[in-house]
Amino acid sequence: MTIKTIYLDNAATTAVAPEVIQEMLPYFETLWGNPSSLYAFGQQTRSALADARNRIATHLGTSDQNIYFTASGTEANNWAIKETMFAYQNKGRHFVTTAIEHHATSHSAAWLQKRGYEVTFLKVDKDGLVDPEEFRAALRPDTVLASIIYGNNEIGTVQPIKELAAIARENKVLLHTDAVQVVGHMPVDVEDLGVDFLSASGHKFNAPKGVGFLYIRKGIKTKGLLDGGAQERKRRAGTENVPYIMGMAKALDLSVANMHERTAHEMKLRDRLINRLLSEVEHCYLNGHRTQRLASNVNISFEFVEGESLLLMLEQRGILASSGSACASGSLDPSHVLLAIGLPHEIAHGSLRLTLSHETSIEDIDYTVRAIKEVVAQLRRMSPLYEDFMAGRKALSAVK
Amino acid sequence: MTIKTIYLDNAATTAVAPEVIQEMLPYFETLWGNPSSLYAFGQQTRSALADARNRIATHLGTSDQNIYFTASGTEANNWAIKETMFAYQNKGRHFVTTAIEHHATSHSAAWLQKRGYEVTFLKVDKDGLVDPEEFRAALRPDTVLASIIYGNNEIGTVQPIKELAAIARENKVLLHTDAVQVVGHMPVDVEDLGVDFLSASGHKFNAPKGVGFLYIRKGIKTKGLLDGGAQERKRRAGTENVPYIMGMAKALDLSVANMHERTAHEMKLRDRLINRLLSEVEHCYLNGHRTQRLASNVNISFEFVEGESLLLMLEQRGILASSGSACASGSLDPSHVLLAIGLPHEIAHGSLRLTLSHETSIEDIDYTVRAIKEVVAQLRRMSPLYEDFMAGRKALSAVK
Repeated sequence: MTIKTIYLDNAATTAVAPEVIQEMLPYFETLWGNPSSLYAFGQQTRSALADARNRIATHLGTSDQNIYFTASGTEANNWAIKETMFAYQNKGRHFVTTAIEHHATSHSAAWLQKRGYEVTFLKVDKDGLVDPEEFRAALRPDTVLASIIYGNNEIGTVQPIKELAAIARENKVLLHTDAVQVVGHMPVDVEDLGVDFLSASGHKFNAPKGVGFLYIRKGIKTKGLLDGGAQERKRRAGTENVPYIMGMAKALDLSVANMHERTAHEMKLRDRLINRLLSEVEHCYLNGHRTQRLASNVNISFEFVEGESLLLMLEQRGILASSGSACASGSLDPSHVLLAIGLPHEIAHGSLRLTLSHETSIEDIDYTVRAIKEVVAQLRRMSPLYEDFMAGRKALSAVK
Repeated sequence: MTIKTIYLDNAATTAVAPEVIQEMLPYFETLWGNPSSLYAFGQQTRSALADARNRIATHLGTSDQNIYFTASGTEANNWAIKETMFAYQNKGRHFVTTAIEHHATSHSAAWLQKRGYEVTFLKVDKDGLVDPEEFRAALRPDTVLASIIYGNNEIGTVQPIKELAAIARENKVLLHTDAVQVVGHMPVDVEDLGVDFLSASGHKFNAPKGVGFLYIRKGIKTKGLLDGGAQERKRRAGTENVPYIMGMAKALDLSVANMHERTAHEMKLRDRLINRLLSEVEHCYLNGHRTQRLASNVNISFEFVEGESLLLMLEQRGILASSGSACASGSLDPSHVLLAIGLPHEIAHGSLRLTLSHETSIEDIDYTVRAIKEVVAQLRRMSPLYEDFMAGRKALSAVK
């Protein structure tokens, strides 16, 4: 018997779209010239890159000269944070970020601290939202940069980036946003948002793993993170990954073309999944904001259940999900994001992230609800904590 | 009429081998799981990565735990240099390198200087060789790291890295070598060489552009350049580029399998090209060492000729070559490498780099010699300098 696979881990990575593979193939097979070479065989790839950059810039409401290709969202975040703090050190050495960033940001913040910079980590409320007034209060005359994740990769909460960017600008502080979960999934207009930097990653919107980009507002004097050749207007050295850049441009074209229908579909299924689980499974809670939330994200904590066991038993039923950020696997620590929204360790450990795509069907959702109900019931039957609870002791949620 | 293309720019980039494309395709089409995910669909790619890492490590005579995947040779160089200088700053802030490095190294050195580190740039002789005794003399108690390019990307000179590494070790200085032009083209055994770091780039040996690796000797405490997730033993964050890493491992398997025959073929053709040009074209000179040289590299300066014009006219005859490092295109400055071996600006401007591959044939070489002879003669007929010279004035070479 074969079980259909239901892939509900699209925040970890997405399938490479067949159109994206087709777009890349010629750049492996025949058009492999170096874009820096002067002969036509090189200039062909140079023109292709220019076209890709222009399309991506247009999708983001900016000019092509503000888009810099990288090998990942991680690289884009490291670049924006580390090099901007250095470039503007005459202004000060204070950096502001939040307690719910991706590790690419929080570990870059730690890198700064080791080098004598000061970092303020903003708290978030129980829904994972930054308080704009707390943000304003954290900005100082020596604050150079703030970095705030646009759509959270674990709990899906979407920050009011436009409002936060306006506050940053009023206070003459630069704003970087990690939009890795947003680009390709929500309309993004960088000029309208008013951000100074924005990071994106191709493999979160059906391009391959190993390509991303950083938007840098015109006039910003941040230098490159990777020094060497004159690629990317001398700001990001290394021979350009032409096939992946072409693939990423194609993937973004596709995402933008049907974004409205796609996200409407995802939101409908997301809400069905959330509502059914909350009403049909006892002692479970939604993490992240109920509406200011990525269209594809569901993150639920189940009391008296261990997340890893939940994942394994769902996998046996063909459902692939995550108990937190995939990047954090290999560690037994509970997610720093779930702790930041106030979950006790035990409940954070019982959390499940299900991230949908346009290919998810209503049947997939209903099958998943049935599977989760079965698995949670089965795990609870084996749980001494649940036994204690059923015997009349108080639920952990009362501590929350 | 169509002209056959003779690609003689393999130091700029190489064709992606068909076997490499075949190796990568499944990782785009079906095996696109995130290697950090706990379910089998993710663990499959994790195992594939482990296998690729193991094969690459074996080819380099080391253990898999010392190989770290990057997105380029540039990233590997930046990483080894910038983060090592920081990690060992308690020892000192002195860095040693040479005047003929790739810009990924020389611009990282400039990055260090801007941050208060001291850099010594070693001179090279007219063949592009570092003097081991000068190297020894440059090492001080506060020297942390030296970085010396193994095979020069422009003039092909191969340094005595084993000897230099022994000197570094005697003086308790770490040694990094940029082996981007060497890996896949010469046997490399990192333990035997005695280096502490070694950088490589896939697209120089028939893998795609956008993948490379850094060897870091066990016990070295250099931290990562890209902070974030726990990938690459917590030393290089970012979701792994599985298809390219698999492709790079395949490309290195292929390179190693026939390395002896391939480089013997290239050296035979290289020497034929050098000997014919030196004997059949007047007023031209070989750049780089005659024998301690990359198998595929020919770099010749033609007096009274402008390199860009030479390139354009060769391209009209189907020959694709370079007038220096492709990475440096877009700049009108003469190559820093050619200046470092003592060429006057005028002669450096008249230089041509021809880099062969296993696919180059003897007919290609003979056709290329004929084309160069024609083109050089034609350009010299238009050169006022050549006219002056023929009228009895002294040759620029007398100034050299």
